[in-house]
Amino acid sequence: MTSSSSVGECLVPESRIQQVKLLNASDDAYGGVTVDMKEPMDSDDFRSLLRASISQWRQQGKKGIWIKLPIEHVNLVEPAVKEGFWYHHAEPSYLMLVYWIPETPHTIPANASHRVGIGAFVMNHKGEVLVVQEIHGKFKGTGVWKLPTGVVDEGEDLCDAAIREVKEETGIETEFVEILAFRQSHKSFFGKSDLLFICMLRPLSFDIQKQNSEIETAQWMLAEDYAAQPFVQNHMQFNSIAKLCLAKKDNHYTGFSAVPTTTGFSAKKSYLYSNIQGVEL
Amino acid sequence: MTSSSSVGECLVPESRIQQVKLLNASDDAYGGVTVDMKEPMDSDDFRSLLRASISQWRQQGKKGIWIKLPIEHVNLVEPAVKEGFWYHHAEPSYLMLVYWIPETPHTIPANASHRVGIGAFVMNHKGEVLVVQEIHGKFKGTGVWKLPTGVVDEGEDLCDAAIREVKEETGIETEFVEILAFRQSHKSFFGKSDLLFICMLRPLSFDIQKQNSEIETAQWMLAEDYAAQPFVQNHMQFNSIAKLCLAKKDNHYTGFSAVPTTTGFSAKKSYLYSNIQGVEL
Repeated sequence: MTSSSSVGECLVPESRIQQVKLLNASDDAYGGVTVDMKEPMDSDDFRSLLRASISQWRQQGKKGIWIKLPIEHVNLVEPAVKEGFWYHHAEPSYLMLVYWIPETPHTIPANASHRVGIGAFVMNHKGEVLVVQEIHGKFKGTGVWKLPTGVVDEGEDLCDAAIREVKEETGIETEFVEILAFRQSHKSFFGKSDLLFICMLRPLSFDIQKQNSEIETAQWMLAEDYAAQPFVQNHMQFNSIAKLCLAKKDNHYTGFSAVPTTTGFSAKKSYLYSNIQGVEL
Repeated sequence: MTSSSSVGECLVPESRIQQVKLLNASDDAYGGVTVDMKEPMDSDDFRSLLRASISQWRQQGKKGIWIKLPIEHVNLVEPAVKEGFWYHHAEPSYLMLVYWIPETPHTIPANASHRVGIGAFVMNHKGEVLVVQEIHGKFKGTGVWKLPTGVVDEGEDLCDAAIREVKEETGIETEFVEILAFRQSHKSFFGKSDLLFICMLRPLSFDIQKQNSEIETAQWMLAEDYAAQPFVQNHMQFNSIAKLCLAKKDNHYTGFSAVPTTTGFSAKKSYLYSNIQGVEL
């Protein structure tokens, strides 16, 4: 991939001018580059190009080198790793690899670290709370009535996730009231950490229609009966959450409301969750 | 890999007894299996074994098939993908692939979806707040004094992360008081969502010693002066957070405290963050 060339009337030594093919890369804001491999390539060709490119990036003082490989180009994973790349993160459709050129310890940011879930406290005007029994998972066959729970999707607001899960599991329509509390735990899922937000919702419909294959059954249950279940009484976290729910029922608890806001630079719409008593935002 | 065999005195047809080599797999709690490839293997051998194993798992009615491939065994990524596996998640040292045997839509849980960060509101007895200017990132060169922020590590409690970041950025020792608010935003980092928790901390030392290469400078600044900065005034999220900090300074705000608890089944220690006024947990 090296060719000699003359420029104007000068004879330029071969070592001075090189037409080296390199991988297409775009600069990032942290002194690194990203290669997005959209087209297929032979593994050996890729490895040669990658070597030449790294050499060039080193000369340019680049730091972190990112390669995004769509799963169709899985043949390029092995050559990248052989050139010193390691895995950063993966999604079903692609693998992101990364390499650090400087001699100093890398400052590559970590991958997403938390799964986020919601538990929904839905109480009707009779002081009854919406509870379910699950078909799968740890609660299977225990007879424990529990709050509907679910995983927050990437890109989904907590308040929307709570409404969606309740609808999916019980058919009940709701509106978001506030976050009562949240719990952080660790090593819950492939070593990741976990945040569970307890959301209070107000029901807008009352006829339960179990719609979800994960749910064995659902019902309205007096909040006091929910809290009095032996399992709830005997498990600290469940007991604490039940106490918060009862306190909320009796109007002596204030959680965090969802206040629409915009984030700093990009002015993206998002929610700030905070106590709104005694402060005007 | 098929061999005929006789058992006792019966002649058993070849099709009835097969000694098929299969991949070692352990059952999971959801009707699936996990293969943890700890030893190296030839790519072609792996592909044959994988095919035979999938056939066996199908007969056994298995659903989700997980393969954990350490980065040393990168040669096995391509054969797995060619057999229909896709990427689930990756960490620097391994890639997790997954396959769904039934004809029905898969119920494979999603990867971690959120990055989690903290912003630290540290106020001394003079009503001054600890602020920094950053060397890199979006605030570089803006002259804006901002609260110390940082990423929560996998496995790290929010309250500990806040204390660690303040110590790393300014040398100030602190203790956790409460979570004032949190903000969820989306598409912030490789498409992942982002949760930022604003933590109030009480300083236990007062002499700033900038220790972190990410920080240009740090100082104590009157909370009112922090809030009055044009950048803070003009950006909704920053303005709201500053108002909460001022309300907290004037003792008319209640956030969420960190209440030690244990999670449901495993009794792991964790924190429940909630308002503790008017409720005994």
